[in-house]
Amino acid sequence: MKILILGSDGYIGYPLHKHLQLRGHEVVGVDNFSRRQRVKYEGSDSLIPLENREELDTVYSGNLCSYSGLYSVLKNFQPHAIVHLAEQPSAPWSMKDVHKATVTQLENVQGTMNVLWGMKELVPDAHLVKLGSMGEYGTPNCDIPEGMIPEDCLDGAKDVKSIMGEITDILPHKCPLSSLPFPKSPHSFYHLSKVHDTNNIIFACKTWGLTSTDIMQGVVFGVSISDEIPLTRFDYDQYFGTAINRFCTQAISDYPLTVYGSGKQTRGFLPLRDSIQCLTLAIENPPEQGTYRTLNQFENIYSIFDLAKMVIKAAYEGGYGAQIKHLPNPRIESENHYYNPAHQKLFDLGYEPTTDIYGEIIRLIVDILPYKERIIKEVIMPTTQWK
Amino acid sequence: MKILILGSDGYIGYPLHKHLQLRGHEVVGVDNFSRRQRVKYEGSDSLIPLENREELDTVYSGNLCSYSGLYSVLKNFQPHAIVHLAEQPSAPWSMKDVHKATVTQLENVQGTMNVLWGMKELVPDAHLVKLGSMGEYGTPNCDIPEGMIPEDCLDGAKDVKSIMGEITDILPHKCPLSSLPFPKSPHSFYHLSKVHDTNNIIFACKTWGLTSTDIMQGVVFGVSISDEIPLTRFDYDQYFGTAINRFCTQAISDYPLTVYGSGKQTRGFLPLRDSIQCLTLAIENPPEQGTYRTLNQFENIYSIFDLAKMVIKAAYEGGYGAQIKHLPNPRIESENHYYNPAHQKLFDLGYEPTTDIYGEIIRLIVDILPYKERIIKEVIMPTTQWK
Repeated sequence: MKILILGSDGYIGYPLHKHLQLRGHEVVGVDNFSRRQRVKYEGSDSLIPLENREELDTVYSGNLCSYSGLYSVLKNFQPHAIVHLAEQPSAPWSMKDVHKATVTQLENVQGTMNVLWGMKELVPDAHLVKLGSMGEYGTPNCDIPEGMIPEDCLDGAKDVKSIMGEITDILPHKCPLSSLPFPKSPHSFYHLSKVHDTNNIIFACKTWGLTSTDIMQGVVFGVSISDEIPLTRFDYDQYFGTAINRFCTQAISDYPLTVYGSGKQTRGFLPLRDSIQCLTLAIENPPEQGTYRTLNQFENIYSIFDLAKMVIKAAYEGGYGAQIKHLPNPRIESENHYYNPAHQKLFDLGYEPTTDIYGEIIRLIVDILPYKERIIKEVIMPTTQWK
Repeated sequence: MKILILGSDGYIGYPLHKHLQLRGHEVVGVDNFSRRQRVKYEGSDSLIPLENREELDTVYSGNLCSYSGLYSVLKNFQPHAIVHLAEQPSAPWSMKDVHKATVTQLENVQGTMNVLWGMKELVPDAHLVKLGSMGEYGTPNCDIPEGMIPEDCLDGAKDVKSIMGEITDILPHKCPLSSLPFPKSPHSFYHLSKVHDTNNIIFACKTWGLTSTDIMQGVVFGVSISDEIPLTRFDYDQYFGTAINRFCTQAISDYPLTVYGSGKQTRGFLPLRDSIQCLTLAIENPPEQGTYRTLNQFENIYSIFDLAKMVIKAAYEGGYGAQIKHLPNPRIESENHYYNPAHQKLFDLGYEPTTDIYGEIIRLIVDILPYKERIIKEVIMPTTQWK
């Protein structure tokens, strides 16, 4: 299969590129290397040095916000699948000031818009695999489906039927909102940019008959996939470092684990290996032509506090005593909330999850320990407040 | 009240500015005059000549995409209300090519983003009155509320209760999706840009405690408000001319009324006078501080075909014989669809609708007749296809 990866220098893009090549696909990557620059501009750097990393042999330098550049690539390569990972990925960065909020939304919306128009013009039969985020949903006080509002969204209707039998035939047969997009309540301008993308993609599939899988991905952690693939970049700073990665870095560097608020916030998480496995399943199993498909991509849901405790325990086994420090939450988010997102569809496609999250955390600590001296402690503490 | 109008040179902005001044408000306007330029660039021009029109005395030239410019205005003027009409307003223009689609979304999203950040920084107690569109909803197969999903979204639940009485206490008491934003299914990249704005505004109100009224406005027609206010600009071309305005222009210039498809598409409509009345009600009756409020703003719903017939009849009374010509629909939209949007809230605020739509159409024809010789017929036919 001919696969174009947009953002192939990134945290997920690099190992995905390698992995798909190893599976025999013809892969071309595009990146503008803005992640490297932005992380350095904020005073940090990838913990895994990128200078000596084995580089990909089929990556072109290019900015997705240039339509003409993308047009050339699509025309020359004629991909069967386009994996779009090329977005500004940080929620706190997007909340820092008006400039960064706007850059996040404009870049992300423009890039996806260019992909959609390029597909319509040149490769209308290609399959767009777009990286969204579980954060698009926020934490609504109801079950979260995968995709559109289901017919049985009314929880109680099934119970009523089982109790009351035929008399309930007068009950409405389905939720009047069914088949409409499930409403999103994201928590940052970054997550909102993904919602904007989602809405644009749904429209393009409906209007132009394009095909897309929109991946609502949980929080990814880890740095290695397999022995055959070099370590990917690894960020642990307040902007580009996500929860478990940041915790593991803190645990090995005499720095308390910074839990925002109570830590009872619950989110979907998955190891990097699972992310690569799931993306590969989505790419190799496209939906029917002209379909917009949503996949909620995470291994399981965990609270931030429980994960922090796991990291403490794992670090202790390795000889590192670490503590948890609760910081006033810089974000505006619920800390006690209902959370029940569906994630069956990837299992139906064959997803075999790494269920041993504790083992993955140990593996992560082992992976980054050789680079311990490179940790810049000053970049970890959150300085960006949502308010 | 100190009122800032963004887009005060526009179709609605100009008469609103005058009207609010006449009501004793202190009004400042901002515009970058891009509408004038874009209409001319597409080969058309306002049917009402703008050259000799009485200009507003408190309008500053400025682009909303410049944060520093907006910042100065907000800091100096300290408005109580900000009326945001400064967006690229054409659906077909946004579907013309990748450039115009992208410009539409980036400009509209960036402008609103700058307003939200400016309010947060400088006037957090101000009330944002933002012009959205009924087109954000599309034509879902269910009732359309004003704002969030209501508790009783399940149509049948009430009937079941009335038939079955107490036994239905086991029925769920409210829709599990209630209080989430009603899902939008817009029909163009322009309407999508308004949905992006809406999502950004909901987030800013929730996170920063800003106050906003999001106006889901129907299709406006007409060119005059009252004897005290000069005629506003009037567009009739394929891009910036909306249905009734275009029909009336066609009817007086020996040009068949171009109905797209069957014309059974149903939309909310309102005369320009009603738009000004409703916007004034929204401005003078802000919601509680920190609230996001949706108002569905239209007089009533009409099918395109019925409106075309009304225009034919009105033109005939004035001595103009006109016909309807059904064109293959350039848009992707349902022509036979359910449509039942709520619009009670403006009535609760005191809206007195102009119920005589036929009389308004006659008035519109009388208003534009003196400018008949300025009509450029070549710009009316649609050349932009959604596919």
